[in-house]
Amino acid sequence: MSPDRVRIGLLGRGTVGAAFAELLGGRAEAVEAAVGRRPELAGTLTRSEGDFDSILAGSDVIVELIGGTDPAREYVLAALRAGKPVVTANKQLLAQYGDELLAAAREAGVQLRFEAAVAGVIPIIRVIQESFGATEIDKVFGIVNGTTNFILSEMAASGAAYEEALARAKELGYAEADPTDDVTGADAAAKMAILARLAFHTPITLDQVPFEGIERLTADDLAYAKELDLSLKLLGVAERRDGGVSVRVFPCFLYDGHPLAPVNGPFNAVMVESPEITEVTMSGPGAGGVQTASAVLGDVISVLAGEAPAREASDDLPVVSDVSSSFYLHMEVADQPGVLARVARVLGDEQISVKSVVQRGIGDDARLVMVVHECLESRFAAAVDQLGRLDELRSPPRFIRVIEEEWL
Amino acid sequence: MSPDRVRIGLLGRGTVGAAFAELLGGRAEAVEAAVGRRPELAGTLTRSEGDFDSILAGSDVIVELIGGTDPAREYVLAALRAGKPVVTANKQLLAQYGDELLAAAREAGVQLRFEAAVAGVIPIIRVIQESFGATEIDKVFGIVNGTTNFILSEMAASGAAYEEALARAKELGYAEADPTDDVTGADAAAKMAILARLAFHTPITLDQVPFEGIERLTADDLAYAKELDLSLKLLGVAERRDGGVSVRVFPCFLYDGHPLAPVNGPFNAVMVESPEITEVTMSGPGAGGVQTASAVLGDVISVLAGEAPAREASDDLPVVSDVSSSFYLHMEVADQPGVLARVARVLGDEQISVKSVVQRGIGDDARLVMVVHECLESRFAAAVDQLGRLDELRSPPRFIRVIEEEWL
Repeated sequence: MSPDRVRIGLLGRGTVGAAFAELLGGRAEAVEAAVGRRPELAGTLTRSEGDFDSILAGSDVIVELIGGTDPAREYVLAALRAGKPVVTANKQLLAQYGDELLAAAREAGVQLRFEAAVAGVIPIIRVIQESFGATEIDKVFGIVNGTTNFILSEMAASGAAYEEALARAKELGYAEADPTDDVTGADAAAKMAILARLAFHTPITLDQVPFEGIERLTADDLAYAKELDLSLKLLGVAERRDGGVSVRVFPCFLYDGHPLAPVNGPFNAVMVESPEITEVTMSGPGAGGVQTASAVLGDVISVLAGEAPAREASDDLPVVSDVSSSFYLHMEVADQPGVLARVARVLGDEQISVKSVVQRGIGDDARLVMVVHECLESRFAAAVDQLGRLDELRSPPRFIRVIEEEWL
Repeated sequence: MSPDRVRIGLLGRGTVGAAFAELLGGRAEAVEAAVGRRPELAGTLTRSEGDFDSILAGSDVIVELIGGTDPAREYVLAALRAGKPVVTANKQLLAQYGDELLAAAREAGVQLRFEAAVAGVIPIIRVIQESFGATEIDKVFGIVNGTTNFILSEMAASGAAYEEALARAKELGYAEADPTDDVTGADAAAKMAILARLAFHTPITLDQVPFEGIERLTADDLAYAKELDLSLKLLGVAERRDGGVSVRVFPCFLYDGHPLAPVNGPFNAVMVESPEITEVTMSGPGAGGVQTASAVLGDVISVLAGEAPAREASDDLPVVSDVSSSFYLHMEVADQPGVLARVARVLGDEQISVKSVVQRGIGDDARLVMVVHECLESRFAAAVDQLGRLDELRSPPRFIRVIEEEWL
C-alpha cells in the first residue's frame, strides 16, 4: 500500500454499494484523520462494467457488496489469496462459507471483516471477536431481522392482521417486494449461524439452524399476549446447552421487563451473556443503505488500523437438537365440561406443567390459552400431537415459545 | 515480544487487579487461541511489593489498575515512552491527562487502551473509536454511573428517600463507604470528558464539564414524575450545539418509551447518535470486579491483535456553556387565587412556555408542578431567581431537566 493513500476496490453498486461510494467520498478526510491514510475509490465492478482482475490488481482493499454467494465467494477468495484484505456485508456468504473464507484470510495473513452482515449498524461482530474475545460466552440472542420486528410491532400496536402489517412494511420500504427470506426466518438463521460460529469457535453450518417465521402468527395471538403481559418477537438464539450448542430462530413471547421487550419498529437488538460480563445489550437500526454503508466504512477503518483475529474454529461442540422451552398454547375447544381435564392429562402424561391458563368465549368461540413451564421440545411436540387428536378441539392447537426468565 | 509468550506487568492489586490476575490465569488459553500468543503475569506492583522499573523492563504490556493520577500518570508515561503498550481502567487519569497520554502513545507508536474506564463492560470506547471512527457523531449520552442509577431506581420503585436508598446501595455493595464522587456526578463528569474527547476529536478538560448530582432529589420528585409518566436518571450528555460542543452531567426526567427509561439498577447504558447510524444504544453492568477485569482483558487482546488509532485531537470546537433545556419545576405555593397567574407572568417575561401543569394539595401542602418547553438555561435561571422572590412561594423553587424528544 502507498504510505499516504489507500485504494479501495468496490464490488457491486446496489443500494449499499452506492451509499458506500458516497460515504467514502464524503468521509475521506475523517478516515485519514483516524488512520493516517486517505482512501480513494480505485474502481467499481457492476454487472455491466468493470473487470474483476484489473480492479483487484489496482486495489489495496476489496469491499464486496454484490450479495449472494456466486460469484461473491470466488472474488473474496481470490482477493484474500492475493493478500488483499476484504470487507463484506454478505451474510449468505459468511453463513455458508465462513470457515473457508476465514481460513483463507488466516493463511494469507490478511483481514476479513463483515460487521455489516449482521444486525446492521450494531457492532456486534467486533464486540464478540475483540471485546469478548477471551470470554466464554454462554449465549448470544436477539432480534436480528428488522422487517419482521416492524411487522410484529405493527400488529401489536394496531391490532392489524399479518398481511396488513406486511403490506405496511412494504409501503414504508421495510420489506422487499419478495419478503420470503425475512418472514420465514431464513435471513435471521444465516445471521445466527455467523454469530454462533464467532461466539463458540465451533463451525456451525446453515443447515444446523432450524428456523420458524412469523407468517402463521395472528392478530389473536397478539391480543392474548397483551392479557398475559407478553410481547412477541422473532428471536435468534445461540447458546451452550447440554454440553453442546443450540442455534435456532423462532417467534417468541417475552415478559414485560425483558431488555428486548421494548425494542420496536425496524430495529435490531442483540444480547451477549456470560458470567464474566453478566449481560450486554446492543440495539440500533437493523438496515438502511447509509447505515449499512457506515458499518462497512467502520470495517475499512479497522482494516487500515491493524490486524483483527481471524480465529480458527478450534472447538467442535455438538449441535444439540432437542432443547427445553416454555410454550404458549392456544386451543379452540368445544364448550363443554371436562375439556380442561383432558388437556391437563395429556400434558401431565408428558410431564409438562402448566404456569397459567385463560379460558375465554362461549359456544363456537370457546378457547383455552395456556403458558406451560419449560419442557423438552420433543415432549411438547408429542403432547401437541395427542391434543390435536382430541375430539374436543375444533382445530389443531397453536403454539409459540415463551422466554420465562425473570428480569430486573 | 517473544513469538509465543507475552509478559504482562500488572500495576495495582485491588479488587479489579486481583480479579484481572485471576481471569488472566484462567483464560490464558483462550487469549492464545484468539491472538496466537499466551499471556503470563510477569510481575505485580503493589504499595508494599515490587519495583516499577524492573517490572517495566520485564514486561511486553503494562496493565495499570492503581487508580488516581499519582503515580499512575508517571508510570503510564514511562511505559509508553519505553515503547510498551498500556491498558488502563483509570478514568481520572484519562479525563485529566488524556491528551498528554494519547500524544505519548502516538509518538512511541504503541497502543493506549482504556475501555474499562467508562461504562464498565459496555465496549463504548472501542465502538466510538473504531466502528464509528469516520462517523460525525452528533451526540453521546447516557447513564454512566451505576451507583446513582441504582439509587434512583430504588427511590422510584419503593418510594424510599434518598438517604434510605443510598444506605441500601451501600448494603448491596453498589456504593462505596464514601460515595461522594458518585452521588455528586463527579465520576460521571470524568467519564463524559473522555467520551466527548473521542467523539468530537476536541480536547475537553474536566473543568469544562459542569455536573450536578442526585443528593437534592426527593421521594416527592419521583412521585410527581410517575404522574407525569416520567422516569428519573442521572445523565451524562456530550453533544454538538451551536457550532461548539456541550458536555454536562445532570439528573433528568425521561418520557416513557425513551430507550434509557427502562435501564434500572446498577446498570449503565450509552447512546450514540449521528445521521449515518441513526442511533445505537448499548447497556450492561456498570461495574463489578470481574466485569471490569473482563473489559481490561479485552483490551489486552486488542493490544496483542494489532494497532488501534490513538487519534490526535485534530478539531478545536468551542465549549458552549449556555444551552437550551426543558425543565420540571416544583413550587410550594400559598393556597390562594392568582398564584398561577404570577408564576406564568414571570415565565412569560423570560419567553418560557409551559407544557403541562399539575396543581396539588391545599393549605400548607399546596404545590404547583410544571414542565416547561426547551429554553435557554440562562433565561430559566433568571426566571427561577424571580420566582424565588415571590411572596406566594413557601420555599425556593426546585427544578430538574427533562428530555423532551419523542421516541417510537
